[in-house]
Amino acid sequence: MFSRDGISLENYFENLMSRGVKSSPQLIRDEILKMNIFNSVFVDCTASQAISELYESLISRNISVVTANKIAASSDYKNYHHLKETARKTGTKFLFETNVGAGLPIINTMNSLTNSGDKIVKLQAVLSGTLNFIFNTLSEDVPFSKAIKMAVDAQFAEPDPRIDLSGLDVTRKLVILSREAGAQVEQENVQKHLFIPQKYFESTLDEFWSTIPEMDEAFENRRKKLDKEGKKLRFIATYDNGLCEVGLHEVEKGHPFYDLEGSNNIIMITTERYNEYPMVIKGYGAGASVTAAGVFSDIISIANIR
Amino acid sequence: MFSRDGISLENYFENLMSRGVKSSPQLIRDEILKMNIFNSVFVDCTASQAISELYESLISRNISVVTANKIAASSDYKNYHHLKETARKTGTKFLFETNVGAGLPIINTMNSLTNSGDKIVKLQAVLSGTLNFIFNTLSEDVPFSKAIKMAVDAQFAEPDPRIDLSGLDVTRKLVILSREAGAQVEQENVQKHLFIPQKYFESTLDEFWSTIPEMDEAFENRRKKLDKEGKKLRFIATYDNGLCEVGLHEVEKGHPFYDLEGSNNIIMITTERYNEYPMVIKGYGAGASVTAAGVFSDIISIANIR
Repeated sequence: MFSRDGISLENYFENLMSRGVKSSPQLIRDEILKMNIFNSVFVDCTASQAISELYESLISRNISVVTANKIAASSDYKNYHHLKETARKTGTKFLFETNVGAGLPIINTMNSLTNSGDKIVKLQAVLSGTLNFIFNTLSEDVPFSKAIKMAVDAQFAEPDPRIDLSGLDVTRKLVILSREAGAQVEQENVQKHLFIPQKYFESTLDEFWSTIPEMDEAFENRRKKLDKEGKKLRFIATYDNGLCEVGLHEVEKGHPFYDLEGSNNIIMITTERYNEYPMVIKGYGAGASVTAAGVFSDIISIANIR
Repeated sequence: MFSRDGISLENYFENLMSRGVKSSPQLIRDEILKMNIFNSVFVDCTASQAISELYESLISRNISVVTANKIAASSDYKNYHHLKETARKTGTKFLFETNVGAGLPIINTMNSLTNSGDKIVKLQAVLSGTLNFIFNTLSEDVPFSKAIKMAVDAQFAEPDPRIDLSGLDVTRKLVILSREAGAQVEQENVQKHLFIPQKYFESTLDEFWSTIPEMDEAFENRRKKLDKEGKKLRFIATYDNGLCEVGLHEVEKGHPFYDLEGSNNIIMITTERYNEYPMVIKGYGAGASVTAAGVFSDIISIANIR
């Protein structure tokens, strides 16, 4: 449904039924451009490739884009760079704070540091609430396969949890952060150290669920050993002077990532100025309400009304 | 020296000597208003009361203010509120991110949360790099009085370290944060639990230095006891649903404030959305370079060029 005057929430459903039209990305773009509203913002809360492909034509026509969708910012560097450059040239904003850490102020903070002449030299982060939940949930009573199932049931993980387990989600986030830190990185440049064999990512989802319990024993043995040594498992993303890596690491008590509760995220930002002790930001890295708030905060920063 | 065309750094000193005039806050204000430059920003890196009193006439004439000076934002609530309201009405900015935690993104983050409809219910923070340095430095070989001296020598503390020891600095910071969280707080509303007797704040600075070693034994006894119990001393500021308190607390291993190195600051922000686990921001809370970067970042956010 398109309306230049806004959509009243009181009778939106009746209006949608009577005046709604069949949508497509092209139709959305054409209707938006036709309306030609000053200082307008396009907000993408989908995970759709097709919608992300609209950004270029919107930004180049002075429409700002706020997006929770990670696809564009983690796509080919050329595409990411072109979108940023187009936004810079047209004085439009292309904001995607919620792509990493949901509502946590990570990308804004990195940009403020860089804009004030600082240089980001290293990032270390736990960026997957899903994986952190899984490794925090493992116990004598909860084997690996059950912890994955619990993450799906709690809607921390995607319906196909392999998007998280394969490190794809963390890889995308690390690529986005590394680019904001100034590196020309592609997803294939990220070194991946995965923790379950490749075959699980090649089967169907049903096959995955029926075969993944094969891993339970190995994880339980590892958990017991780590428990004795006072260590925990964390899936860590690292950017270090241009090099990107994601992988499962064992962290000791006292390590900043050891006490990372539930599905929280944490990032340590080392810069030329924040050097001996990095800047640390920690908190919910996923969830509908904090992500919505982050999207809204990006919109407000464009409106520049506060 | 005043120049509408800017000041060249190449020969600024000769120019200052030949064209410089004797300054006063009133002269500064009058010259700035006379220049009448569009979208200009007044930057205050002093700790001067007289300079802070210029803000009102500048903001009401559409000149934004960026300040590292804590005096205005921690003055009478009425004055703080009037400055914020005037800025809102004139569409001008009154920014003071560096008043708390130097370059750490604390106030901006709180504002983003609030602007997106969240509500800040609790703040817990270590906001004095000086006091944290002192309590981290205490050891068998470094008594209390020497740790204070070391903080002054390292320029973490004011030349008169009692501004830090009296909790005045932390009180001001807590007042500023509580106001940004929505509370109408005055400095005298903050409950203070100090750790050295009142008499040390009433003597001259020389008397202070000659008498403060009297406290060394008590602090060494406490340090030894805490060491055995695996605890540390932290000077903590708390805002909890409108109530403000600063005081010295013993924190155990595993407490988020236990591993707070050197002169770092940390803040835990509990909101309606960041509830079970608060948002945590940690890093250098003082220092010329990170403070300068924070000031610069405020200026850039007004220029809105990135």
